Amino acid sequence: MQSATSAVPSASPYFDEARSAEVVNARMSEDADARLRQVMSVLVKHLHAAVKEIEPTHEEWFTAIRFLTDTGQMCTDWRQEYILLSDVLGVSMLVDAINHRRPSGATPNTILGPFYVANAPEYRNGANICLDGKGEPMVVEGRVADINGNPIPDAKLEVWQTNDDGFYDVQQKGIQPDSNLRGVFTSDTEGRYWFKSVKPRHYPIPSDGPVGKLLAAIGRHPNRAAHLHFIVTAPGFDPVITHIFTPDCPYLPEDAVFGVKRELIAEFNKIDDPEAGERVGVLSPFWSVSWDFTLATSSKPTRAIP
Amino acid sequence: MQSATSAVPSASPYFDEARSAEVVNARMSEDADARLRQVMSVLVKHLHAAVKEIEPTHEEWFTAIRFLTDTGQMCTDWRQEYILLSDVLGVSMLVDAINHRRPSGATPNTILGPFYVANAPEYRNGANICLDGKGEPMVVEGRVADINGNPIPDAKLEVWQTNDDGFYDVQQKGIQPDSNLRGVFTSDTEGRYWFKSVKPRHYPIPSDGPVGKLLAAIGRHPNRAAHLHFIVTAPGFDPVITHIFTPDCPYLPEDAVFGVKRELIAEFNKIDDPEAGERVGVLSPFWSVSWDFTLATSSKPTRAIP
Repeated sequence: MQSATSAVPSASPYFDEARSAEVVNARMSEDADARLRQVMSVLVKHLHAAVKEIEPTHEEWFTAIRFLTDTGQMCTDWRQEYILLSDVLGVSMLVDAINHRRPSGATPNTILGPFYVANAPEYRNGANICLDGKGEPMVVEGRVADINGNPIPDAKLEVWQTNDDGFYDVQQKGIQPDSNLRGVFTSDTEGRYWFKSVKPRHYPIPSDGPVGKLLAAIGRHPNRAAHLHFIVTAPGFDPVITHIFTPDCPYLPEDAVFGVKRELIAEFNKIDDPEAGERVGVLSPFWSVSWDFTLATSSKPTRAIP
Repeated sequence: MQSATSAVPSASPYFDEARSAEVVNARMSEDADARLRQVMSVLVKHLHAAVKEIEPTHEEWFTAIRFLTDTGQMCTDWRQEYILLSDVLGVSMLVDAINHRRPSGATPNTILGPFYVANAPEYRNGANICLDGKGEPMVVEGRVADINGNPIPDAKLEVWQTNDDGFYDVQQKGIQPDSNLRGVFTSDTEGRYWFKSVKPRHYPIPSDGPVGKLLAAIGRHPNRAAHLHFIVTAPGFDPVITHIFTPDCPYLPEDAVFGVKRELIAEFNKIDDPEAGERVGVLSPFWSVSWDFTLATSSKPTRAIP
């Protein structure tokens, strides 16, 4: 046995339950990338703290190993189960929040989600993005402005949403028309935009994998509150990736991915007036939604660690 | 927009950077399994604390998603990359320590490792488990006793180790003889055991996957310090899964999986005496190792959370 005096106890390189995270982190090379060292040391510190608080049995530890393995093995080119896990644990929203701390009054971000498609068709204001004719007609109109209320002309507004069955076009290729319920609009000289669509529906995130099983085990459902997605961009302004939510969705207070922010819940007014419908080119009754976007001037996100 | 007075702010179900972990954990059902609720709430708390301390960019978050995905996808029936990750982050040793808090004086556990094989050949004391004749001869002898020093007869001692090239038999099927360098011995009426073998060598853990890339990026090597594995069992005693380490291995203070404990470093005495070699049936020079195992009486592990 080595002499007990051959090393100062506090600097022992050997594993020790009390100093476990410290022993692991001391092993990293001084020459490694400084940011990676920082990230790993924080992860190891919290991971060990969690294990010490949980005190898992060997069987519980192995259940965790299997869950992490299965989650990785569920991923394919078109399914990202680890992003889903990040979403349902609120981590995606937290990372988004950390990276998009905006001045008061600016439209807040929420998560992008997996159904964004680049190069959606460009439309003139007033166009109808619902190509399958299913669902309750809806007219959305509003204004893009800066935080002082000045209109932002030529802002690009990309919108996408589910159809009346709760599916995105990319989930139902061959069933829905291509690019159904997605399009790009441009604000006019007064910052105004307007388009026609149908009221979005709530829908479940994929629940046939390890993440769905976890949700079921902790008594959570997989449903997302009904919403429209938007990305609003204009030169010189911080791009906004956001949703607007319907106020009457039963899943609003329990969105599976924590995407709802109180400031993103819109009013949806039901208009039962055939003449009003005729003026905007939809059948009555229809839903009328007025929603303004307020963009902050572009700046580096205010993160404590650059 | 919903009325701001419609919910008490402190109980808001909506995502909020400051209360993020609380909002996520409040979503679990009261009816879910109590232990799972506890485990998940601790994991979410520490995960969110780590994200808040790290403040990852979106790109860093996605690097983590890719790493977790790749680690799952590296796993096969014969390769468990998540256990490897647990090992190199010191989590496996921590879980082992939590589950095997023994009275002072008892032989401590260390990790089982992936190369244990059940039903190894049973040998009489004195047998040589080295079937390929490669390496420096070694004689191991010692005693199995309880913490009061009373001998434990009929204890089973399972031993396994690498050959002189640093590989286990199961890693070199068809190259090494079957069951090379593994066997089961039984202590005699005085608790004594003895066998012949060769001095073990250090070896690298598999480093061609995501875990190996992570180790390289943080400036760590993949080598395990040279050791013999033991499982020692006797009716009425807490089974011991442990190693003994050679004192001269350069990787002793930096074992890749943190398996080394000071109390598990043995003396390896080099004997250059042909007569002594002849008495024990090995060529001189040879290594002589004396190692006693002290077993604690079996009891539930002392974990704070049952």
